[in-house]
Amino acid sequence: MIESLSNSKVKYATKLKQKKYRTDTNQFLVEGEHLVEEAIKSGLVDHVFTTEDKSYEEVTVYQVSKEVFSKLSELNESTGFIAVANKFSSQDLSNNILILDGVQDPGNLGTLIRSAAAFGFKTIISENSVDYYNEKVIRSSQGALFYTNLLEENLIEFIHSHKEYTFYGTNVSLGTNLKEVDFIKEKIAIILGNEGQGLRTEIQNLVNTNIYILMLETESLNVGIAGGIIMYEVFERNL
Amino acid sequence: MIESLSNSKVKYATKLKQKKYRTDTNQFLVEGEHLVEEAIKSGLVDHVFTTEDKSYEEVTVYQVSKEVFSKLSELNESTGFIAVANKFSSQDLSNNILILDGVQDPGNLGTLIRSAAAFGFKTIISENSVDYYNEKVIRSSQGALFYTNLLEENLIEFIHSHKEYTFYGTNVSLGTNLKEVDFIKEKIAIILGNEGQGLRTEIQNLVNTNIYILMLETESLNVGIAGGIIMYEVFERNL
Repeated sequence: MIESLSNSKVKYATKLKQKKYRTDTNQFLVEGEHLVEEAIKSGLVDHVFTTEDKSYEEVTVYQVSKEVFSKLSELNESTGFIAVANKFSSQDLSNNILILDGVQDPGNLGTLIRSAAAFGFKTIISENSVDYYNEKVIRSSQGALFYTNLLEENLIEFIHSHKEYTFYGTNVSLGTNLKEVDFIKEKIAIILGNEGQGLRTEIQNLVNTNIYILMLETESLNVGIAGGIIMYEVFERNL
Repeated sequence: MIESLSNSKVKYATKLKQKKYRTDTNQFLVEGEHLVEEAIKSGLVDHVFTTEDKSYEEVTVYQVSKEVFSKLSELNESTGFIAVANKFSSQDLSNNILILDGVQDPGNLGTLIRSAAAFGFKTIISENSVDYYNEKVIRSSQGALFYTNLLEENLIEFIHSHKEYTFYGTNVSLGTNLKEVDFIKEKIAIILGNEGQGLRTEIQNLVNTNIYILMLETESLNVGIAGGIIMYEVFERNL
């Protein structure tokens, strides 16, 4: 059992709580028994720390003291399970992609990843958004994150260099009613913006079509809900 | 300026952080300048506490010390504005209603209230769910809560005694594909269940139709997303 807070594996894993180290190392932490088991199934896990007497096939498990666990953990209540996992991403883009321009709330990002998985958007591309590998993002994604191709790109350059996609922006009132949009193209990219500001104007100017979701006046939707509704429409119409 | 933590108005408002006192008094707290102003516009606000030098027409404002404010507040960072507001609810039910059976996450409940407002579901009925007047619920609702008729009822009794409504349950796989559901009825009630367990079986057995949202196998949706998608479909088809 690892009891020393200065154990090198513990020190390394603790650093992964910071985005900087996740970026440098291409690794991240997964917390909670269910999520750790999902991550193991996905093949991304390198090793697991646990306060329990538990083993998994294929991955190394280190039993740790409660004190060590609480140093590793980002949650107030101990879940007893933390994995160090490898990021995976590929330049092979799926036919349907979700693009995020400055989504800041981890719960929104995680929910968007979960909905994207449900509706076959297997690639997500973001800029200026909260880190994909933030603990709350992973938790809200319910593990869908482990199976999604997650990329960070300069969105303006990406749009310019991927003319094979039709880019659909979102705007509260300008553009075409979602129900009237023709989604029959083979490669579809849905772009969602920041919770407060929406899409940057430079990006709105580059899209092929702006979509709005009809609703009662003076109201608005959470970006996760807007994204879920649009991806569902694309999914249903392309079956 | 109120500087005493034992001031009777401060002591009263502090108690409203607990659900028990909100239920006993039919009042609740609203925190943050923007939400407080939305609540004032809705006509629900009784009085406001602020650390700023600010006044509003129509409502009494008490300037308070930072120490008093932090006793009233439920947030870590001071927003400087807290209102004591009156709950409002009515037995006049809207034609479209949203029913919640054990929704536990405040962010999900708040987002559902916001989407319900956007899509014309002006009455929400819940049982065994997180309190409507929880600070996080109010914040995620973005103020839509102040204009929504929020009721708590025994759902089984409610369904039995409101035969004028068509009740649509939600189930991951059983039932009718959302896109094939006929929503032409005048009075529609959509029922959503708990994040982990879904709808209670007793309630599933009482509904007129179970709806599922088509998605890729092995995936699932957040209850807020599922509710948003279904309410949008009802709204769009009844225009």
